[in-house]
Amino acid sequence: MFQLLDIIGTIAFAMSGALTAMNKKMDPFGVFIIAFVTAVGGGTLRDVLIGRTPVGWMLDLKYVYVIAAGFILAVIFRKKFDRLRTSLFLFDTIGLGVFTLIGLEKGINIGLHPVICIALGTMTACFGGVIRDILCNEIPVIFRKEIYATICILGGVMFFLLRELSFDNDILYLATSLVIISVRLMAVKFKWYLPTLENK
Amino acid sequence: MFQLLDIIGTIAFAMSGALTAMNKKMDPFGVFIIAFVTAVGGGTLRDVLIGRTPVGWMLDLKYVYVIAAGFILAVIFRKKFDRLRTSLFLFDTIGLGVFTLIGLEKGINIGLHPVICIALGTMTACFGGVIRDILCNEIPVIFRKEIYATICILGGVMFFLLRELSFDNDILYLATSLVIISVRLMAVKFKWYLPTLENK
Amino acid sequence: MFQLLDIIGTIAFAMSGALTAMNKKMDPFGVFIIAFVTAVGGGTLRDVLIGRTPVGWMLDLKYVYVIAAGFILAVIFRKKFDRLRTSLFLFDTIGLGVFTLIGLEKGINIGLHPVICIALGTMTACFGGVIRDILCNEIPVIFRKEIYATICILGGVMFFLLRELSFDNDILYLATSLVIISVRLMAVKFKWYLPTLENK
Repeated sequence: MFQLLDIIGTIAFAMSGALTAMNKKMDPFGVFIIAFVTAVGGGTLRDVLIGRTPVGWMLDLKYVYVIAAGFILAVIFRKKFDRLRTSLFLFDTIGLGVFTLIGLEKGINIGLHPVICIALGTMTACFGGVIRDILCNEIPVIFRKEIYATICILGGVMFFLLRELSFDNDILYLATSLVIISVRLMAVKFKWYLPTLENK
Repeated sequence: MFQLLDIIGTIAFAMSGALTAMNKKMDPFGVFIIAFVTAVGGGTLRDVLIGRTPVGWMLDLKYVYVIAAGFILAVIFRKKFDRLRTSLFLFDTIGLGVFTLIGLEKGINIGLHPVICIALGTMTACFGGVIRDILCNEIPVIFRKEIYATICILGGVMFFLLRELSFDNDILYLATSLVIISVRLMAVKFKWYLPTLENK
Repeated sequence: MFQLLDIIGTIAFAMSGALTAMNKKMDPFGVFIIAFVTAVGGGTLRDVLIGRTPVGWMLDLKYVYVIAAGFILAVIFRKKFDRLRTSLFLFDTIGLGVFTLIGLEKGINIGLHPVICIALGTMTACFGGVIRDILCNEIPVIFRKEIYATICILGGVMFFLLRELSFDNDILYLATSLVIISVRLMAVKFKWYLPTLENK
C-alpha cells in the first residue's frame, strides 16, 4: 500500500516537473532532468544531509523507471493538461503526504530530535519543487503561494503528538497522511494562504 | 565567548536572510526558510563536502532556536530596519569572522591542506548568503559587490602565517577575527571594492 | 595521457566558467568562484551523492592550481576570446569526454547499476555548467540548446555495450571518448538540436 502510494507520488512529482519545464520551452533532456530532480530532489537532499549515501534512487532502479514513465505520460498528454489538472493535483497531494512520512521515518530511524525529523519530512516533500523552480529560474513557488510546506509541518507535529499517546504505527501513518491530504484539499478549495510579509 | 559570538553571528545571518526574503514579498514560511539557509547554509555545505553527517544543525537544536529568534525579531522590527542597519551590519561582520574561523578549524581537524582549509572557512562564512540570493532569484551579491569573501581569504592566510610562527591558539583566533572584522569595517567605510572584470 | 586530458578538460571548463562570469560583470572573486564550480561542480555533486567525502578536489591540490591557471588565462585573454573560441571549444569537448568516463568509472567501482553509472558520468560532465548557469541567474543552457548531455548518455550506453563484448579497458576508454568527442563536433558543425517540448 505504502509502496504504491510512494510510486503514485513519484509519478505525480515527475509530471509536475515535466510540465513546468515544458512551459519554459526546454528540450526533452531538460524536461527529463527537471522531472527527475522534482521527483527525487527532496529525498536526495535529505539523504545527503544525514549521510545516507549512495542516495536512495541510486540503489533502487524503480525510481528511474517510474520517473521515465511520468515523463513520457507528461509529454504525450501535454496538450491536455487542463483536463488532467484535477487528477494531477490529487496525485501530487498524495505524494506530499507520503513523502513527508518517509522523511519523518528516516529521521526517527537515526535517532534525531522530533523538530529535526519534521524538518526532514518537510524537506523530502517540498525540496524537489524548490530545486525545480531554481533550475527554471523562478523564485520557488512554495515560498510565495499556497500553504504547502506549512501543511507538512502540521502533519509532522501531529505525528509526534499521536506518537506520544503511543498509538500504533499503522494508525500514526494513516492519520498523518489523511490530515496532510485533507488539509491540502481544503486549503486549495477554500483558498487559504499565508499573508506575505513585507518590509516596505 | 566563542559560543556567544557564534550565536550573535547566526542571529545576524538569519536576520539578513529574513530581510532579503521580505523584500521579495514571501510568505512567513518562505521568510523562515530563507533565514534558516542563510544562517546554516555555509556550514551545511562544508559539512556535506567533508562528509561530516548528519550535518551540524541536526545534532544541536540550539541553531533552530537561535534562527527562530532571529526570524521573529526580523518580522517584528521589519519596518524599523533602516535604524537598525548599523547594529545588524556589526553583527553580520562578527558572524563573518567567527564562521571563517569555525570553517578553518573543521578543515584542520581532518588534516586538510591550508589552501583547502581557507576555502572551507570562506565557504562557511559566505555560502549562506549565496544560497539566499539563489533562492531569491538574484545573482549572488558577493560575486558583484563588496570585498566580502576576499576578507575571509585574507583572514585565513593570516591565520596560517601566524600559526607557522607557532602562536598560541587563543591569540591566533583573536587576531584572525579582529583582522577580518576590522578590514570589513574599513572596507565599507572607505568604499573599497574589487573592480569588475568585463570582456566587452 | 588520461591525466593530461583531465587537466585539459578542467582548464577548459574553468575558462568557460570565467567567460560566463565576466559577461555578467562580476568581480575577480566572483569570476574565480564561477570558474571553480564550473570545473569541479559536476564531480563534487557526484562525490557527495555517492558518499565519497571529502570530495575529490579537497584531497588533490592539482585541481586548485589548474583552475587558478585557467582563471588567469581567461582574465588575460578576455578581449581575445572571439579568436580563441575554436580552441576553447575543442578543449571543452575533450573535457566532456574525459569527465563522462571518470564518472562512469566511479560508479562501476562501487558496483552501481549501469543506468546509474551513466547518470553519474553525465552528471560529472554536465553539472558544472548547470551550477555555473544557476549562479549567473540563467536557465541552464544544456536544458535548452545543443545536444550536450545527450552525447554523454550516448557515450555511456556505448561504453556498456562494448564492455558486454568484453573489450579491453583501454579500448573501451578510447572508443567512448572518441565517440563523445566526434559526435559533439559533428553536432555543432551540422547544427543538430533536440526539438523543444512545448505544452502551449
